[in-house]
Amino acid sequence: MRAEIITIGDEILIGQIVDTNSAWIGQQMNLIGLKIHQISSVSDNREHILKALSEAEARADVILITGGLGPTKDDITKHTINEYFNSELVLNETVLEDVTKIFASFNRTVTEINRKQAEVPKIAEVIRNFNGTAPGMAIYRNNKLFVSMPGVPHEMKAMVSEQVIPLIQMKFKLPYIYHHTVLTQGIGESMLAEKIQHWEDGLAMDNIKLAYLPNFGSVRLRLTTAGNDYKILLQKVDEKVRELKILIAPFIYGYERFGETPMNMSERLVKSLTDRVLTISTAESCTGGKIASEIVSIVGASSVFKGSIVAYSNTIKQQFLNVSSELLERFGAVSTEVTECMAKHICETFQTNCGIAVSGIAGPDGGTKEKPVGTVCVSLQWNDKVKSFKWRFSKERQRNIDLATQTALVELLKWMESED
Amino acid sequence: MRAEIITIGDEILIGQIVDTNSAWIGQQMNLIGLKIHQISSVSDNREHILKALSEAEARADVILITGGLGPTKDDITKHTINEYFNSELVLNETVLEDVTKIFASFNRTVTEINRKQAEVPKIAEVIRNFNGTAPGMAIYRNNKLFVSMPGVPHEMKAMVSEQVIPLIQMKFKLPYIYHHTVLTQGIGESMLAEKIQHWEDGLAMDNIKLAYLPNFGSVRLRLTTAGNDYKILLQKVDEKVRELKILIAPFIYGYERFGETPMNMSERLVKSLTDRVLTISTAESCTGGKIASEIVSIVGASSVFKGSIVAYSNTIKQQFLNVSSELLERFGAVSTEVTECMAKHICETFQTNCGIAVSGIAGPDGGTKEKPVGTVCVSLQWNDKVKSFKWRFSKERQRNIDLATQTALVELLKWMESED
Repeated sequence: MRAEIITIGDEILIGQIVDTNSAWIGQQMNLIGLKIHQISSVSDNREHILKALSEAEARADVILITGGLGPTKDDITKHTINEYFNSELVLNETVLEDVTKIFASFNRTVTEINRKQAEVPKIAEVIRNFNGTAPGMAIYRNNKLFVSMPGVPHEMKAMVSEQVIPLIQMKFKLPYIYHHTVLTQGIGESMLAEKIQHWEDGLAMDNIKLAYLPNFGSVRLRLTTAGNDYKILLQKVDEKVRELKILIAPFIYGYERFGETPMNMSERLVKSLTDRVLTISTAESCTGGKIASEIVSIVGASSVFKGSIVAYSNTIKQQFLNVSSELLERFGAVSTEVTECMAKHICETFQTNCGIAVSGIAGPDGGTKEKPVGTVCVSLQWNDKVKSFKWRFSKERQRNIDLATQTALVELLKWMESED
Repeated sequence: MRAEIITIGDEILIGQIVDTNSAWIGQQMNLIGLKIHQISSVSDNREHILKALSEAEARADVILITGGLGPTKDDITKHTINEYFNSELVLNETVLEDVTKIFASFNRTVTEINRKQAEVPKIAEVIRNFNGTAPGMAIYRNNKLFVSMPGVPHEMKAMVSEQVIPLIQMKFKLPYIYHHTVLTQGIGESMLAEKIQHWEDGLAMDNIKLAYLPNFGSVRLRLTTAGNDYKILLQKVDEKVRELKILIAPFIYGYERFGETPMNMSERLVKSLTDRVLTISTAESCTGGKIASEIVSIVGASSVFKGSIVAYSNTIKQQFLNVSSELLERFGAVSTEVTECMAKHICETFQTNCGIAVSGIAGPDGGTKEKPVGTVCVSLQWNDKVKSFKWRFSKERQRNIDLATQTALVELLKWMESED
């Protein structure tokens, strides 16, 4: 069983947009046990699309097509698919109703051009679009499934999750797949591999595959297995996860189970704070407000987050975060002594249970021999307890800011998880 | 003249990484007048790569290949290209020196595996890699140019800019291309089209093409022309840009000339502030520190940026930004009256020339009939002058935060540009 993706649109070829759809589709198909064999990006051109369709049909069982729908593209994909299958376009009443409803919600009436959007090839099964006006289409012929969807990411994603995956699972007998991912931080890939080598060797016996997914200072360990009895798959994998937990407990900050929506670091922290009825504030120097803005980006942040002081200059640190000039002179602005003072003070004045304080040398300038570019100090305050860290990241400014932000968030998360 | 891109690697097909390389390459090729005909992503597999190479060779003149190099991939691309061209692998002394130098900089010696990286097909011209150990290769046969590069973005980008583009321009007689882009904000695509219709109609006579590139509340207008006399191209386009400036002056916040590195909004603002020897601070509610962190992300921020108060809760607004409870009751936290007070106070206490203050309803909750989700108020302070805005963006939280941030930055930028 193989799948292919065809993306249609000049905007991808000239680099006006980055194709993020294909990676997302690749992930989703991989999760149901269907491998993407090839991705082809072609232009909004009849001959080119026809050729891509026949090439993909020769290689794959499922062909997923995105883009080239909608009135500004003259619905080139729809017309070309119609031609490829020697079908004819007919008005679909359900689609017309959907389109009319969408227009009504914007207080607009359906024009002739939009009416044309409700025409679909007779041979196709409609995949309804509840988020836009261009419908999707599914055509099943000679044991091969063709699916055409709009290129707008949120329209395409809803179609894949709600309609296309069930359709694929119905048309093809795929084995059950089960994934469980363990999220670790604070340990490199090779060190991790060494620590769990023995455990990893035992996975093959249970037909479980392990993938190391390193990403930005954290390593996700994904266990995957396939089979015909879902309950047994689940039991086998979860047992292995329990064994793993014992081996690397201090590095785990969370889990991702198959079917659950993945959460990013700040989502996890906001949830963790909400569950514990805690509030938080930040005092930031080199991260410049990024930690605060990551927290605020999460729905529900207002119930846990009160605010932040971004003290980029030392004067602000002294005036608003109670950092004395003596402390600055003795230890320097980038020191855990200073971040501890910042964390304590922000919790007191903003009256929060938790505080995160950061000071570092983001670069490219400002490094010294003792404190080179990439040196970052972080203090975490939780009621009357404090934990401090001193890291050395990279030479790149943006990378240092991003790593400081993510690592500070995850260390607080790990602290909270470990208190359970 | 056509080019194609082949990306090699399972990590793209299973969606573990998003292919950003292709969009970047597409942009660069487009800028030198070379159109990408197709992008194909294939697996780390000999037969699959061979097939992709012969298909691409049948369709295109320039074939750009990324990925599948390096020891962990067993250099699959190199071996397969070697096979495709019936060549043989030979040790290249220049590459070996480059590899040895890179290892020396990490205080490591070259292992046998790394030595193998210095082997290249005899038929290939080496494209040196100054940022990593896998060399690039160029093969020119039957008027077709094949280029293979590593998939690591910064290694590939340096190779394309410094070596591959000159090589393409040498092997193929491409016309000169000249672009000049006018950056606008505060006016929609269709309104803009209406305003400049007459001017736009006149472009064809000078063989100038216009592209509307909308992105996140701003529209970039790119003028492009091609020909054999670079000086004439430049004169023609720059004259048209001058005409355009008269028509839409209040919406222009900058220009991008072909060959100059594009700057983002915060880079432009930091440069503008630096040039004018001004300092800045921010007082943020719904953006949660994002404006501050955008400024801090720029190299050189420390000479203009002092800090920020993120006052997410009203208590913090009252205690630290001098917003009276009377003002809050009378106008509400999301009002230009409140943001003006915030902007004035942050400039005074942080002693900066400029201040940006934001308050809004990011959503999904908190909207009312008068102030629905997406309502954002911004005040800009510049010495003793203040400008205030009230916008209504979208229903999506993250989009509202991002739009508020970008629009606030660009409005200050436009203000400064207009004072010149």
